[in-house]
Amino acid sequence: MTYCVGLLLNAGMVLLSDTRTNAGIDNISTYRKMFTFEEPGERVIAILTAGSLSTTQTTIARLEEAINDPDAPSIMTAGTMLNVAEMVGDTLSDVSSKVADKLGSKAQSARASMIVAGQRRDGAPRMFLVYSEGNFIEATSDTPFLQIGEHKYGKPILDRVVKPNTSLAEAQKAALLSMDSTLRSNLSVGLPLDLAVIETDACRVTRQRRIEADDEVYQKMSADWSIALRESFANIEIEGAPGD
Amino acid sequence: MTYCVGLLLNAGMVLLSDTRTNAGIDNISTYRKMFTFEEPGERVIAILTAGSLSTTQTTIARLEEAINDPDAPSIMTAGTMLNVAEMVGDTLSDVSSKVADKLGSKAQSARASMIVAGQRRDGAPRMFLVYSEGNFIEATSDTPFLQIGEHKYGKPILDRVVKPNTSLAEAQKAALLSMDSTLRSNLSVGLPLDLAVIETDACRVTRQRRIEADDEVYQKMSADWSIALRESFANIEIEGAPGD
Repeated sequence: MTYCVGLLLNAGMVLLSDTRTNAGIDNISTYRKMFTFEEPGERVIAILTAGSLSTTQTTIARLEEAINDPDAPSIMTAGTMLNVAEMVGDTLSDVSSKVADKLGSKAQSARASMIVAGQRRDGAPRMFLVYSEGNFIEATSDTPFLQIGEHKYGKPILDRVVKPNTSLAEAQKAALLSMDSTLRSNLSVGLPLDLAVIETDACRVTRQRRIEADDEVYQKMSADWSIALRESFANIEIEGAPGD
Repeated sequence: MTYCVGLLLNAGMVLLSDTRTNAGIDNISTYRKMFTFEEPGERVIAILTAGSLSTTQTTIARLEEAINDPDAPSIMTAGTMLNVAEMVGDTLSDVSSKVADKLGSKAQSARASMIVAGQRRDGAPRMFLVYSEGNFIEATSDTPFLQIGEHKYGKPILDRVVKPNTSLAEAQKAALLSMDSTLRSNLSVGLPLDLAVIETDACRVTRQRRIEADDEVYQKMSADWSIALRESFANIEIEGAPGD
């Protein structure tokens, strides 16, 4: 499995993905699930992927092929971010169907989903969750984050702290702690992590890092969070008994 | 959906279930999902249910019918808690198959699962998660809790704080906070809640409460936990930047 999360804030977008891929629990590999495309100052797009690796790799390869073909329409030439989401959706749906045809009765495992985030010059930053069928939903100020893969473990912390006016520093912390909860509770999600920050109107990837398993800053944050949670838990006083 | 959790500790067992049942999102009702059976001092059994309401109601009804029939073997006369789990499993599997036959192609929705917890005099407290097919797994000191239904949102807090030597008071708090995270992140799980505590070797239900939506103690705990989480989040300092 996978866990990827994207936060759409006033100050910009924060994207985080894990790298664990497994074909059965005894065949575990590390694959990048974050892909960024940029023409600095003009356009920036990040795509995060979850689901069938054969479907997502082929989809990304096709999108890249189109970018490199001067005659083909591509996500780097599409008129709007909405067109970009449609283009990713159409490609994903097409690849997913073809892989499903080959798999026959195991077609379920050809499914994949993607978070598509980006901004073009003169446009607003936008973020979409594209489903296997090619349809998509968009992040809004009511719901300023999107998740794909093993999304449930890490949702409570996001529900509580992420608002459109959350700063980029706080948002990175929220994304990393959401990932931390998922890593602890689900073996199919694993380090290293890929983190990207796209500041609003920069139209470029402002910051991109790979966080390895031995990253001291991440380890300390994770340990501090464990201690803080345990202390918070210990400090909650139930006065009386619920239900009495 | 549903969220039920059972904790098996040295001091006893803590069981918590929600009550929301839905047939489609526009048909929401309240049904008890916790059933207790006791012959005080001799035997105590608690069953928590998730999944198809028609399957779980019929299964519980059959188990009760057997208890009331002096000639039939029942969970109140079974030799061991393992036999109890097997009896629940066989009944659940049988009912689930019959409901699935009636549903035809919609057979998936006849599935259900149960947590079976209890102790008989001279036996140890044991807790099982029984699947729709009738097979089951047992809680151990390595994994001292079992969950059914929407289990992912509330797992991180349990993973962090529940150990076999956790006290019954702390365990009730952990179960309630695990439920609180689930209630916040998933609309298909809802108040009121049913809470039961079975102390080790008491062979009776030590404490059983219904916690209504307006329960002040629960509301205060939930609000305190929100504040504590937000404060913990605010206090986590990331020194430097992960990945740098």
